[in-house]
Order: sequence, then C-alpha cells, then structure tokens
Amino acid sequence: MKVSIIGFGLIGGSIALNLKLVNPSIEIVGVDRDESNLDYAATHGFCDVPRGTIGEEVAGSNVVVIATHLDAFVPVAESLVRVLSGGELVMDVGSVKGWVVNNVKPIFDEAGISFVPAHPIAGTEKSGAMNAVKGLFDGARCILTPSSNLPEEVKRARLFWELLGSRVEILDPYEHDSIFSQVSHLPHLIAYALVDYVLARDEGAALNYAGGGFRDFTRIAASSPAMWVEIFKKNREFVLRDLESFISVLQRYLEDLKRRDWEALENILDRVSKERAQMRF
Amino acid sequence: MKVSIIGFGLIGGSIALNLKLVNPSIEIVGVDRDESNLDYAATHGFCDVPRGTIGEEVAGSNVVVIATHLDAFVPVAESLVRVLSGGELVMDVGSVKGWVVNNVKPIFDEAGISFVPAHPIAGTEKSGAMNAVKGLFDGARCILTPSSNLPEEVKRARLFWELLGSRVEILDPYEHDSIFSQVSHLPHLIAYALVDYVLARDEGAALNYAGGGFRDFTRIAASSPAMWVEIFKKNREFVLRDLESFISVLQRYLEDLKRRDWEALENILDRVSKERAQMRF
Repeated sequence: MKVSIIGFGLIGGSIALNLKLVNPSIEIVGVDRDESNLDYAATHGFCDVPRGTIGEEVAGSNVVVIATHLDAFVPVAESLVRVLSGGELVMDVGSVKGWVVNNVKPIFDEAGISFVPAHPIAGTEKSGAMNAVKGLFDGARCILTPSSNLPEEVKRARLFWELLGSRVEILDPYEHDSIFSQVSHLPHLIAYALVDYVLARDEGAALNYAGGGFRDFTRIAASSPAMWVEIFKKNREFVLRDLESFISVLQRYLEDLKRRDWEALENILDRVSKERAQMRF
Repeated sequence: MKVSIIGFGLIGGSIALNLKLVNPSIEIVGVDRDESNLDYAATHGFCDVPRGTIGEEVAGSNVVVIATHLDAFVPVAESLVRVLSGGELVMDVGSVKGWVVNNVKPIFDEAGISFVPAHPIAGTEKSGAMNAVKGLFDGARCILTPSSNLPEEVKRARLFWELLGSRVEILDPYEHDSIFSQVSHLPHLIAYALVDYVLARDEGAALNYAGGGFRDFTRIAASSPAMWVEIFKKNREFVLRDLESFISVLQRYLEDLKRRDWEALENILDRVSKERAQMRF
C-alpha cells in the first residue's frame, strides 16, 4: 500500500505517523515545500519518500491526501492530475467543503480521477510535522462530503479513515460548512477577538492575571493565522451569518446589563448552562 | 486553630478540605443552608461542626471565610458581627472586590472586626462541597485588596492563603475588578452567548459536531448562572465597558469580512496568535 501526503504539517504528518503505527509496511510519499517537516518525519520513520514538489512518485498511490492550507488546493490539484495514473483515490482534509466541491473537485472530475472531500475533526493549535500526534484521529469524527453518488469511492474513503480509527459520517458540503462555521470557525474568530481586546486595554496588563478559564477559552487563538484567514475566506457566507448573529446575541446581553434586567439575563444563562452541562464530547 | 466557613460550596469546601490535608487538627465550622454540602463534608472528614445558620460556634475562630454567593454577603456580615468576639480575621472570597469594599467592609469596620477582601483565583465550572478539589489553591494566585493600611491584618491573611499553597498578591480593589472583568467575567459572558447562539440556530443541530476546541471554549458556560449574574451585577461598570468594547472588535472583524479585506484580518490575527502563543499560565 502506498499513501502520498501533499502538505506534511500537523494533519498530514499525523496521518502518516498513525498509518505507520497501524502498518509499518505502508509506504509514505511526503510532499512539502518546508524541508524541516519532511526531515523530521523521515528521521522519525514516518516519511519514506520526501519530496519538495509533486512528481511521478505519487502516481500509483492507493490514496493521495491533500493536507496543505486551502489556498494551495487548486495548484496542488492541477499538479496532481498531470502525474496521477487514474486509479488513485484523492481526498483533501480541508475545514471548508462547499468551496472544495466547487473549485477543486471539478479538476479531478475532468481528469477522470476519483476525489472525495474529507474533513477529519481533529487537530491542535500547533503546526508542523514535529507536532504530529499519535492517535489524533482515533475515535474522532471524519466527515465525508461526496456531492455525487459514487458508492465505490466513498467505500474506499471510509475504509481509509476507519483504518486510522475515525468514525466516518456523510454530510452535504454546505450543511458541513454551516455546522463548522458555528462550532469551530466562529469560536476561533471570537477567541482571536478576545485576546486582541485584552491586549489592547492597558497594554495587556490583565493578561498577567489570566487563569485556567481564560487559558482554555483562548487556546485556539494561538492557531495559525494564515490557515484561519483562508478558512474565513472560503467559508465567508456562513461565517458572516454567524458573526453577525452572534454580535446580536451580545447586544441583547448588553441591553440587559444596561437596563439592569438581571432576571432576563439569569433566565437566559440558566437555560444555557443547563444545556451546556448536558453536552457530551 | 479554628476556621469557620460560611457557604460550604465548591470554594468553601475546597478551603476546608485542603486545610485538613495541611493539618488535620484544624477545627472546621461549616455553615450552609444546604444540608447536602455539610453532610458530604462531615462524612468525608472536612467539616467538624456543621450548622444551618450562623451562631456562636463561629466566635473565637482564627479565620472566618465568607464563601457564599455575593448576594448573601451583606446579611452574612450582619449576622457575623452579632456573634464574633473581635479577635477573628474575616475574609470573603468573592470575585468582585470594589463592591465588597464599599458594601461589606464598612459593616465589619463599624463593629471593630478585622476584614480583608480576598479573591483566590481558583475554581471549576462545578458547584457544591461534593466537587471540592484537593490542591485547588496550590500554586494559584490569591489577590488581597485591603483598602486601608493595616499591615497586621494583611500579614495574617497572607499566612492563611500561603498555608493553602497560594501565591498572595495585593491589588487595588478597582484594579482587581477591571482585570477580572477582562480575563474572567467577559469570557464567561461570551461563552454563554456562544452556546446560546448555537442552541438557537437549527435547534442546536451543530452541537452534535462540536469538538475539543468548542468544548474547552464553552466549558465555563456550564457555570452557575445565579452566581454569575451576581458577578455581572456587582461588577456592572467594568463588564459593560468590556462587553461594549469587545462588540466593537467583533464589528471591526465583521467589516473586514464584508469588505473581503483579508490582509487587514491576517495582520490582526498574526499579531494576536503570536502574543497568545507566548502566554504562560
């Protein structure tokens, strides 16, 4: 079995690392412009064929995973269709799926190459193959958003992620984008905004007093800004919808505070905290 | 040594539990209207004298800790001054200090009883003595906000918290309130608002897909709403300031998204993520 991974960062590296743990005989072709990712992976035994650019080594792979930032997906797809032989299954791992279906999938469709958009719900606020995590996908959801009905491709995609321990689910690409705008993209934007605000007030003096709540709350604000701006860009419509609506919720709370309507505020918080306490992750 | 704890919840219970771990011979008087807190603590050996109301048992304590919700502070103080003999050091553990200095401290001052406002920076999203945590204050900050200069009282207060392993700091009460509005009160309000918003959209369907980021981000939204509304009420001026300013930051991001000004957004996020990645907690 041969798997090619284009973009050997935290996610790409973790896929390679965990494939090797499942079966050391799986051959990993790694493509990354950043030598330090591939050097680290090669030294630690989870990249067999390190390459700076996409070449013929990826041809004949069982699976090719596109794990670069979103802004490289189109040129990567254009490079891949020039070298692939046609029997490969290509998947991406991007956090936005409608844009991928509209802009990336057609490139593979036209070349007659199987492509299934995928989104493993896993990651950390860190970057790079040196931060690859053992068991990152184990028990985690992986969403597939195949827009056309090709059962064989979906079956192959499903098997790949199940090999890594993921629980595979199928969603409509836009349903996916609406959901992850709410539970991931908006929270990231808010976390950035909170740190932004506290840094600006009194030269960030309050940050010396931040505790565990603030730490957990803003952990995701350390995430790669280049990656996140691409996500906001590619999921702009849903992020705009959610940010605008979220501001309205805050404005409602602000009005309650201004009017000293403590009962209204407590009723809201009461309902919310009960629901939150019941959530299981 | 005798320590009385008025309000035997998560914080009060954790103080008692950890005092007993330091020195089992410290006598703990526990006062709580909720019998289940005291039953649990008595059964588990961290409450020696359980009482439903404040009575003469608290007189002669070395330290009396007020650990009820903020809305009970004034009646508790009024009850305490009727039974205390004068040699006790009273402290509260409330999350707001300006209000305590203005509304609670005068009651003790008038009665000639030593009072030092304190705020241990510790806690979880849970409530009740049954959720008391071993080592909760160990290595954690404890802020004292003595508004007048009484070195002996402050020395006694400091020793008490150091016994529990805390790092004691002195702050002006309003400086305290400004700081904790930013790093604690505002984040709680935002976490509540985010869960509120996602619950309201599509009947909360997206919550089924929430991952580790959302979990950490909204953990504090499970906190006691009655307690938090009291905090917002008592620290209303600073919370209003911070909520209003935070909404402006989000509106700026919204404008960038609307105008597709990705460069502006990336510049902001770049600066913020670098600062956040350097923070140590």
